[in-house]
Amino acid sequence: MAGYDQTLRPFLWRAERLHPDREVVSRTHEGIVRNTYEEYADRTRQLANALEDAGIGDGDRVGTFCWNHHRHAEVYFAAPNVGGQLHTINPLLPAEHIQYIVENAADRLLFVDQSLLEALEGAHDAAAFESVEQYVVMGSEVPETDLESVTDYESFIDAHGTEYDWPELDEDQPAGMCYTSGTTGKPKGVEYTQQMLWSHTMASLTPQALEIDEDDVVMPVVPMFHVNAWGMPFATTAAGAKHVYPGPSPEPEDLVRLIQEEGVTLTAGVPTVWLGVLEYVQEHDVDLDSLERVVIGGSAAPESLIRQYDDLGVEVVHAWGMTELSPLGTVAHLKSDLEDRSPEQQYAKQAKQGLIVPGLEFKVVDDDGEEVPWNGEDFGELWVRGPWVTDSYFERPQANEVDFEGSWLKTGDIVTVDEDGYIQIVDRTKDVIKSGGEWISSVELENKIMAHEAVSEATVVGAPHEKWQERPVAFVVPTDDAGMDEDEFLAELEAFIAEDYPDWWTPDAVVHIDEVPKTATGKFDKKTLREEYADEDLLVTEESDD
Amino acid sequence: MAGYDQTLRPFLWRAERLHPDREVVSRTHEGIVRNTYEEYADRTRQLANALEDAGIGDGDRVGTFCWNHHRHAEVYFAAPNVGGQLHTINPLLPAEHIQYIVENAADRLLFVDQSLLEALEGAHDAAAFESVEQYVVMGSEVPETDLESVTDYESFIDAHGTEYDWPELDEDQPAGMCYTSGTTGKPKGVEYTQQMLWSHTMASLTPQALEIDEDDVVMPVVPMFHVNAWGMPFATTAAGAKHVYPGPSPEPEDLVRLIQEEGVTLTAGVPTVWLGVLEYVQEHDVDLDSLERVVIGGSAAPESLIRQYDDLGVEVVHAWGMTELSPLGTVAHLKSDLEDRSPEQQYAKQAKQGLIVPGLEFKVVDDDGEEVPWNGEDFGELWVRGPWVTDSYFERPQANEVDFEGSWLKTGDIVTVDEDGYIQIVDRTKDVIKSGGEWISSVELENKIMAHEAVSEATVVGAPHEKWQERPVAFVVPTDDAGMDEDEFLAELEAFIAEDYPDWWTPDAVVHIDEVPKTATGKFDKKTLREEYADEDLLVTEESDD
Repeated sequence: MAGYDQTLRPFLWRAERLHPDREVVSRTHEGIVRNTYEEYADRTRQLANALEDAGIGDGDRVGTFCWNHHRHAEVYFAAPNVGGQLHTINPLLPAEHIQYIVENAADRLLFVDQSLLEALEGAHDAAAFESVEQYVVMGSEVPETDLESVTDYESFIDAHGTEYDWPELDEDQPAGMCYTSGTTGKPKGVEYTQQMLWSHTMASLTPQALEIDEDDVVMPVVPMFHVNAWGMPFATTAAGAKHVYPGPSPEPEDLVRLIQEEGVTLTAGVPTVWLGVLEYVQEHDVDLDSLERVVIGGSAAPESLIRQYDDLGVEVVHAWGMTELSPLGTVAHLKSDLEDRSPEQQYAKQAKQGLIVPGLEFKVVDDDGEEVPWNGEDFGELWVRGPWVTDSYFERPQANEVDFEGSWLKTGDIVTVDEDGYIQIVDRTKDVIKSGGEWISSVELENKIMAHEAVSEATVVGAPHEKWQERPVAFVVPTDDAGMDEDEFLAELEAFIAEDYPDWWTPDAVVHIDEVPKTATGKFDKKTLREEYADEDLLVTEESDD
Repeated sequence: MAGYDQTLRPFLWRAERLHPDREVVSRTHEGIVRNTYEEYADRTRQLANALEDAGIGDGDRVGTFCWNHHRHAEVYFAAPNVGGQLHTINPLLPAEHIQYIVENAADRLLFVDQSLLEALEGAHDAAAFESVEQYVVMGSEVPETDLESVTDYESFIDAHGTEYDWPELDEDQPAGMCYTSGTTGKPKGVEYTQQMLWSHTMASLTPQALEIDEDDVVMPVVPMFHVNAWGMPFATTAAGAKHVYPGPSPEPEDLVRLIQEEGVTLTAGVPTVWLGVLEYVQEHDVDLDSLERVVIGGSAAPESLIRQYDDLGVEVVHAWGMTELSPLGTVAHLKSDLEDRSPEQQYAKQAKQGLIVPGLEFKVVDDDGEEVPWNGEDFGELWVRGPWVTDSYFERPQANEVDFEGSWLKTGDIVTVDEDGYIQIVDRTKDVIKSGGEWISSVELENKIMAHEAVSEATVVGAPHEKWQERPVAFVVPTDDAGMDEDEFLAELEAFIAEDYPDWWTPDAVVHIDEVPKTATGKFDKKTLREEYADEDLLVTEESDD
């Protein structure tokens, strides 16, 4: 009766056999690299042999510390399909978080980009990295480095043949892993089974989600260390479509050139990226003729952005997801029965997080545990469940108690649902700031700022920001009654925070206050602060992190 | 880690909530019936309550003996989602087969169409039907009948409320069942788990398969007793699209009217149906403006049919499947890199069975167990595996030994695969004839004919037929040396075969031969017979079964 296990392996097999000449194109530090699916599959099998030779098998974790390129895409298929677990690590995280993640996941191999080697060396800690037996630098030579047991990717795979007999895996086999940052404490690991990745891949292909067909040219700009680049390398392969990978730190100019030269039809990333591309397109009067759709997620897509891409003839596919959802949850497709509404009403729908993808279920629960009506006004926390939604965090029983209830994941997003079923995020239960698609823990930031001798009490609030969607603003009560010069203190804070956190964690502004407002239970009342300063433009200047 | 179980329940929930006003339209003996998704879901929950009240739960089989209509679609969602098993029975089968099927499946409830009641009464056998506790006639009144414990559908559900708390089912729970006819012996039961139906549904939605979106209007003409109408009721609901059900024995005129009046965009059925519709359209000079795509499967779609629909502006989506595959296996979409080929070359591709659907794997194995190259010439048996492919037959260990090898299903179809990956069926390993999408066992037919006193030896061969794709022709060696009048004997045979088989099993022609050619091992050598008579048009006249 029961069908054969749901695993990723058949997707690459099908793409290689049905579309052997279609390309996987990659912008690297060595220039544009072109492989056909046949070459991609050959190299993936060479890598599989190399992994097996390195002792990687059943349940072993393989870490990647990489941008988007063909070698990373090869690890995407080889690591899970030899029975290991693809563990993508976000290089933008604070060093302490990276140490925790590598130690917690017990990665045995680490693939690292040449351009990220310094960042990895900076985060390296002998104890935390004890499990790592080997480092593989993504390129064809080993650069100078303090790390030990380092090889380069091409040497690593070159010694091996292109034949490999993939094992028949169980669909419950862990295949992927990604950490998500929370309010407090360490990042939480989300594991993906073969079945979860398979389900997410099939769902991504449907017209209700991303509708990827074989004639698409798909460029995930969303980093491959962010929830598997939203699953696009898997879905693109399942569709048999052409891949385009924009490489390390792509600038708008790079993205526009790739779109034009490779004929990209579908791309995806956070709003910040698309704001930059839009600006570039407008300034340089270039066209994006081939581009049909831009998937925007990671943070809410501003309505103005949706309109401006529409004016360029590019449809914005606004989507919402989470690491815990592999990540796709909702897509703001315009329902056909809304086609006769005014453009304003249509844009307003597309600016919401959207409609639940088939296969998932959700409910919106208020403080009393009751489901709220779908009227666009009543709000509550969004709970989700489904075949590609995790039911627990890796080794975090306490977090599991908080974030799950029965089969439901409590997303922490406070939402409304309108009469048409469109979900809109209106707030968060969790005290985090999302800047350009990356999480900042306001609690951690507050603790660091309060550790400064000039600070008696401080709280950090996410303020709306045109480019980064949100940026942190610190409200500070100084120890010295004489007060502080806000700009001077901000400069000082920058160096102080840099001791422990990346520079993009530094608040964009400091506001001197006499007292942090508190709730009845003594917690920082950020809501009051936000309301009090709602009319003030806290972020008048573009800051140095631009 | 592991995601939530893959079950059908969320599909109907999503359609009801996101598209409450969209319709499920049904042609019935009571006229056109229109329900919205909201009403469909309400009625399905009433039915679920009724089923529960009738004691149907975990693993209980619910038989249906019905054409395509809204009530059948309600059973499609209610029976599996209360934890039971939807068992669709083909009313066109010989009575003996129906008896075997009901007994083997041990159906506890039987839903039966008013128009099929007589057929069911004809097949009824107290011993074989012992498990059946109740018959529910699809309508609002109980017609006169010999059956006992009969109620009508509307009374059955009317007594119950529209609230129902669906159980949380395991994805391994058996959810469906369908029997497939074989060469010899009884039909074989294929069970579908929730997971298999879920996988098949998600795969059906993808652009690589049927690409069903919410603005589609989907009319499955393929009967709902044929592998769940190729899964379309599930996929249409998952997409949130409008359903149109053509009811009992629809004529071309009925289908054309439904296409026009309901704005059907996507429909599906065997070639015979679409030949009839084409003829009607040409004779009556009507248009099919709304219709975008016709899925043709069950038997090979003739290239001329594909061309003629293309001329009408309707794309033929040629597909191949099997009961064992839930049923979708391949779809003959034109690959984008073939777009610059000549129309002739393109039609030739579309006339093949097509490209494997993502998620499945196949290989083509020759007599020596070796995989054949993809050159469009070498042939072998098609082996398939995947999440919606069964790995065994219900209670048929001997058949399992023959038809499965490891994780692979041996389809019995002899195929070639061309350089572009298109699979084409060139022969069958199994001695069956497929007439208008229905299987006829030539072995059973031969045994029956050889039981006739005038026959010494006989063999039955499928001959190509314009309307039915294949029709049986009997090659008969008479006992009487004086020979036989072929036409006279055919008329006699008709009554003789009708003792045990439906009239459509009667051969369309009888050919008097002196000896049945035999293979080296003494088996009937049908290949030689087919070759010998290849140039003769065995079926010159349209027979009475038209």
